Amino acid sequence: MIPFNKPHLTGKETHYIYDAVNSGKISGNGKYTKLCQRLLKEKYDFGKCLLTTSCTDALEMAAILIDIKEGDEVIVPSYTFVSTANAFVLRGAKIVFADSRNDHPGIDEHSIESLITSKTKAIVPVHYAGVACNMDKIMQIAQKHDLFVVEDAAQGIDSYYINNHGKKQALGSIGHLATFSFHETKNVISGEGGMLVINDSQFEKRAEIIWEKGTNRSAFFRNEVDKYQWVDIGSSFLPSEIIAAFLYAQVENITNIQQKRKSIWERYYNQLIDWAAQNNVGLPHVPSYATNNAHMFYMVCKDSSQRDKIINHLSKNNILAVFHYLSLYKSPFYELDYSGGRLKESDRFTETLVRLPLYYDLTDDELTKIIYTIISTPF
Amino acid sequence: MIPFNKPHLTGKETHYIYDAVNSGKISGNGKYTKLCQRLLKEKYDFGKCLLTTSCTDALEMAAILIDIKEGDEVIVPSYTFVSTANAFVLRGAKIVFADSRNDHPGIDEHSIESLITSKTKAIVPVHYAGVACNMDKIMQIAQKHDLFVVEDAAQGIDSYYINNHGKKQALGSIGHLATFSFHETKNVISGEGGMLVINDSQFEKRAEIIWEKGTNRSAFFRNEVDKYQWVDIGSSFLPSEIIAAFLYAQVENITNIQQKRKSIWERYYNQLIDWAAQNNVGLPHVPSYATNNAHMFYMVCKDSSQRDKIINHLSKNNILAVFHYLSLYKSPFYELDYSGGRLKESDRFTETLVRLPLYYDLTDDELTKIIYTIISTPF
Repeated sequence: MIPFNKPHLTGKETHYIYDAVNSGKISGNGKYTKLCQRLLKEKYDFGKCLLTTSCTDALEMAAILIDIKEGDEVIVPSYTFVSTANAFVLRGAKIVFADSRNDHPGIDEHSIESLITSKTKAIVPVHYAGVACNMDKIMQIAQKHDLFVVEDAAQGIDSYYINNHGKKQALGSIGHLATFSFHETKNVISGEGGMLVINDSQFEKRAEIIWEKGTNRSAFFRNEVDKYQWVDIGSSFLPSEIIAAFLYAQVENITNIQQKRKSIWERYYNQLIDWAAQNNVGLPHVPSYATNNAHMFYMVCKDSSQRDKIINHLSKNNILAVFHYLSLYKSPFYELDYSGGRLKESDRFTETLVRLPLYYDLTDDELTKIIYTIISTPF
Repeated sequence: MIPFNKPHLTGKETHYIYDAVNSGKISGNGKYTKLCQRLLKEKYDFGKCLLTTSCTDALEMAAILIDIKEGDEVIVPSYTFVSTANAFVLRGAKIVFADSRNDHPGIDEHSIESLITSKTKAIVPVHYAGVACNMDKIMQIAQKHDLFVVEDAAQGIDSYYINNHGKKQALGSIGHLATFSFHETKNVISGEGGMLVINDSQFEKRAEIIWEKGTNRSAFFRNEVDKYQWVDIGSSFLPSEIIAAFLYAQVENITNIQQKRKSIWERYYNQLIDWAAQNNVGLPHVPSYATNNAHMFYMVCKDSSQRDKIINHLSKNNILAVFHYLSLYKSPFYELDYSGGRLKESDRFTETLVRLPLYYDLTDDELTKIIYTIISTPF
C-alpha cells in the first residue's frame, strides 16, 4: 500500500528528546522551543515567534490578541480547514465566508471588499497548498478599512510571496499575525504542533502572557516582575519540549526536506501535464506572485465522477489519494447561520480536487507506479 | 544544586516514540493515545478518557461541554492554579471564589452552599497535593442544586477518596467530569499533557467532537457517517502520538513510580515531625476520607517570615524549595471583578506554604541533606 502520507524522521529527533529530558526540562518554553523560534524567525524574517500545540491553537491566540468579541465579523475562505473559522467562533465572531479564486483554491481577493461591513474586524487568507494569496491586494484592503490580517499559513512554511516591488517575502511574515502547522502531514513536523508569528509588535507582550495561561511568567523569568500572577485570559498554548526537540531536528533539515519534496512535485507535474490536458484535469496553478513549497500535489478534475474514477482506480492499485475540504458555508454547524450566496468555486474544489501521495520517503518506483496508474485510469 | 523537580525517564519513552514514528502515525488519537486512555480508564474505573495537550485544555473542554455561557457562575477555590478559573472565564463565566479548609488547602466544603446563586452552573473542587476534597458532601450539594462537578485532579493521579460507605474511589472518577495533568512536575509526565475524564455519559459523544476540532472525525473512522464535517465548536485538544508514546512508558510504570515517591514523602514526614511541632510548622494533613499519592510534600509555616527563613536557608545550601499559588481573588486580573469577602485561609496558604523537592531520582543522601538543612534553619 502506498499511503497518502508518511511522517519522515531526519534522524536526530530522539537524540534531541533525550537531551531535553537530561537537561531536566521537558515542559514548554525551554531550550528547544527557543532554538526553533530563533531559527525560523531568522530564516524567514518573521516577527516574534511562539510555538504552539497546533495551528488551531495559534489561530485561537490570534483571535484573543485582536480582541474578537461577540458579533465581530471575520472574513474566512469557505474552502479551508474548520479551525480557520472555529478559532474565531470560539470568541463569539460571525464568520463571513469568501469564495476561492477560479484558478486556485486560495481566497478570491476581488471578492473580499464587498464582504466588509462596519462589524468586520479581520481577514484570514489561507495560503492553500503553500501557494500565496495576493497579499499586496489583501493588505491594501485591510489598511483601507482598518482591519487585521491573520495569515493562515498552516501549509505555507518555506514559501514566498513576491510583492509589487519584486521583493520575496516569506509567507507568515506579511500579515499582522500568522499561523503555521507542524502536523504530521506538513513539510516539517512534530506530530501535532504549530506556531504563531507576531509581525505587529503591539501584540508581542500580550501574546507571551496569553501563551503562558494568562500569567506574566515570561516577564517573571526576565526579572521584570517579582512574582508571576494572573493578569489576563489565556491558555496553555505552549508545547512540551519533547515536541520542540522533535521539531528542531526537522527545521534544521528543512533545505534537504524541501529539495526532496520539490523533486517529487516536479515529476508529478511534468509527467502528468499531457495526460491532464487531454482529460480536462487541472494541475496546480502557481500565480506569478507566488512560489511553490511542494506542500501538496493536487489535481482538479472536470467533475466529481472523474475524481471518483481516479481515486477508485488508485485505490484498487493500493494507492491512497484523497479529496480535501468541504465548503464550510454548507457545513452542518454553520449553514443555518450563513446568509451569503452560493460560493461556486469553493463548491467546485470540494467536489473535484484530489490530492496525491507526497512525502519525503516516497521512492522513485512508487512515484512511477502512481503516475502510471493515474494515466491508465479508465474513463 | 538540588532542584525542586527533575523529570524522570522510565527508560522506554524513546523506544515507544520510535515505534510511533515507524508506524506512520504521530498525529493525535493513534495507538499510544488509545493505550494510555484504556490503561488509565481500567486501572482507576474512570469513564471515557481523552488525552489532551494540558490539564488547562481538559478544563476548557469541560467548560464547553457543560455549556458555560456569559454570566454563568462557577465556584472555584481561590488557592489554585490560574487555569482552574481561566478555562471558565474564556467561555464567559463569572468566577465565585471559595476559601480553603483550615487544615488543608483544598476547598472548604462547608463554605460552598452559601456561594450558590440562581446563576451557579458548576463547582470545581481541586484535589490539592493529590489529597481528596470531601466529595460526598460536594456531590450532595451539586445534586441538591442541580450543578455540575468538574474535579480538577491535576495533581490527583493514583489517589483515592474513601466515601461514606467505606468504598475507595479514584480521584477523577467521581465528578461529572475530571481533569488531570501530566506536566513535568507531576507524578507521571509527558512534559506538557493532560486528560479529560467523562464520567457522565451524556457528554461522551460531544466530547469526542470538541476534542477533534468540532468535527465528527471519530464517528467517520467508525463508519458511522460517510464524511467528516464541521458540526460544533471545538479545538485541537488532542496531543501528538509523540507525547502519548512518552506518557505510555510512564503510566505503565506507575506502581514503581508511586512506591518511590511515597517512600520519599514518608521520610520527610517522619523525620520532620518533631522539629515541625517544636517550631509551629504544619505538615501535610491527609483527612480520614483521603489517601496520599505523594504528589507533593509541603509545610505550612507559622508566618511568611518563617517561610522566608526556611527558603533562604535551603537556597544558601543549594536546595530549591518554592512557595505555591497566590490567592486568585486578589490577582491583578480578577480583583476588580471580585465582590466577595476576604478568604483568610487562601491568603494564609499563599503566605506560608512551602514545597520541598520530591522526585523519583532524589537520592537518599540528597534527602538527608534537605531534611538536615531544614532542621538547622536558624530562626
